[in-house]
Amino acid sequence: MALVLTPLKGMPFVNPGDDLVDLVASALSSNTINPLDGDILVLAQKIVSKAEGRMIELTEVTPSPGAFKLAAEANKDPRVVELMLQESRRVVRVRPGTLIVEHRLGFVCANAGLDHSNVAGPPRAESEQVLLLPRDPDASAGRIRSGLEMRFGRRLAVMINDSHGRAWRLGTVGTCIGLSGLRALVDERGWKDLFGYTLQATIVGVADELAAAASLMMGQAAEATPAIHVRGFPYALGDGSLQEMIRPASQDLFR
Amino acid sequence: MALVLTPLKGMPFVNPGDDLVDLVASALSSNTINPLDGDILVLAQKIVSKAEGRMIELTEVTPSPGAFKLAAEANKDPRVVELMLQESRRVVRVRPGTLIVEHRLGFVCANAGLDHSNVAGPPRAESEQVLLLPRDPDASAGRIRSGLEMRFGRRLAVMINDSHGRAWRLGTVGTCIGLSGLRALVDERGWKDLFGYTLQATIVGVADELAAAASLMMGQAAEATPAIHVRGFPYALGDGSLQEMIRPASQDLFR
Repeated sequence: MALVLTPLKGMPFVNPGDDLVDLVASALSSNTINPLDGDILVLAQKIVSKAEGRMIELTEVTPSPGAFKLAAEANKDPRVVELMLQESRRVVRVRPGTLIVEHRLGFVCANAGLDHSNVAGPPRAESEQVLLLPRDPDASAGRIRSGLEMRFGRRLAVMINDSHGRAWRLGTVGTCIGLSGLRALVDERGWKDLFGYTLQATIVGVADELAAAASLMMGQAAEATPAIHVRGFPYALGDGSLQEMIRPASQDLFR
Repeated sequence: MALVLTPLKGMPFVNPGDDLVDLVASALSSNTINPLDGDILVLAQKIVSKAEGRMIELTEVTPSPGAFKLAAEANKDPRVVELMLQESRRVVRVRPGTLIVEHRLGFVCANAGLDHSNVAGPPRAESEQVLLLPRDPDASAGRIRSGLEMRFGRRLAVMINDSHGRAWRLGTVGTCIGLSGLRALVDERGWKDLFGYTLQATIVGVADELAAAASLMMGQAAEATPAIHVRGFPYALGDGSLQEMIRPASQDLFR
């Protein structure tokens, strides 16, 4: 069986308060996709954050002294750095242009996941907004999943992805920041290979692999499609969480 | 258009000297896939290394004093550590059970990409083999691509992937270690978003995203399918290389 990732064309621009269950269900219909048990919907972080009203007006942000200091070091807007600090547990690395943090959600990422582009519609001189990550992406995925499951009467999964930079390698890759109804990791330790050897060290980051696959089909710019329908995921659905994927600091040689 | 990843069922066990062009072409036929211009084949590192005879008998490896010392620190077989050192430029981190190196090919990875499972067929007491990465994976991908293009008369791309661990997150993900006929990165800096904002910091690791997607369909254990056919890749094919994807040490905050 093949893995098929279909971008949902025609998703409208998402505004605060929009019901993503409605929007995704409509987009599925208009793309003539009738969900089956085991199908997965991958949604871009941006539309989930927007629907949840996670936009912040920079004019309303007052940077702390610490944010001013860090902003000078990172060569960034102190108001933006203030928000990054509010969204983080701690700063992991700073360098001009780059702030790597441990996000309050637990993962390490650049700029605390803040997004400055394409937040609120056409640029307006008087307004400058940034978008924060959803408050609890697993819960967001769970709510959307429940709604879609009720709507379609099928057992579905929902994942939220974002583009993350990485240590060691160039290029962002789609990364899972929240999920409901599928496992984040598949532990293959102890499975036998073709010849009966026991496999070593094989916990597979299946949610991140799917997040990367979906990201390929989302695009980034004007043709962006922020919702991807997935059929043929080769692992049984189950319960997963963002926290499963986060390497504990005590086991992390690079934090 | 959808992205469709189809595992090629029925690939035989690969032995040194096997012609992967033959094996992949036969598997495409027996899976009734007729390649079209723009299709991509993703091959697991393991079959490329095996076809190229990159197995080493551990009984023939003599560890250096440095390998003995590092093996004690990493709690590993000194002969295996000797091979890891031969395959690396430098050691980045050591801890019991884990050796993170800068591979001679340039990327940072665990255990220099050495593979100890399922190398040569059924376990034999007298033989213990490990598998090294291909000598030049871009060149390997290029040869296989040329052969397949000649065979089918189509413009194709070939990628070799491997499962890599990551800083910060648990679970391995499929990662590109060599490619021919597609770009490793897509630079979207300067593209406009829906409302005319210029996108920031967006170089997308499209090859790694595809490597992750293909890895999902390869599986790891007895049902492994080491060759995946990809149709619907949303970026124009072009020239790419492994080196493009490697973050220069001078820009790497975690090396």
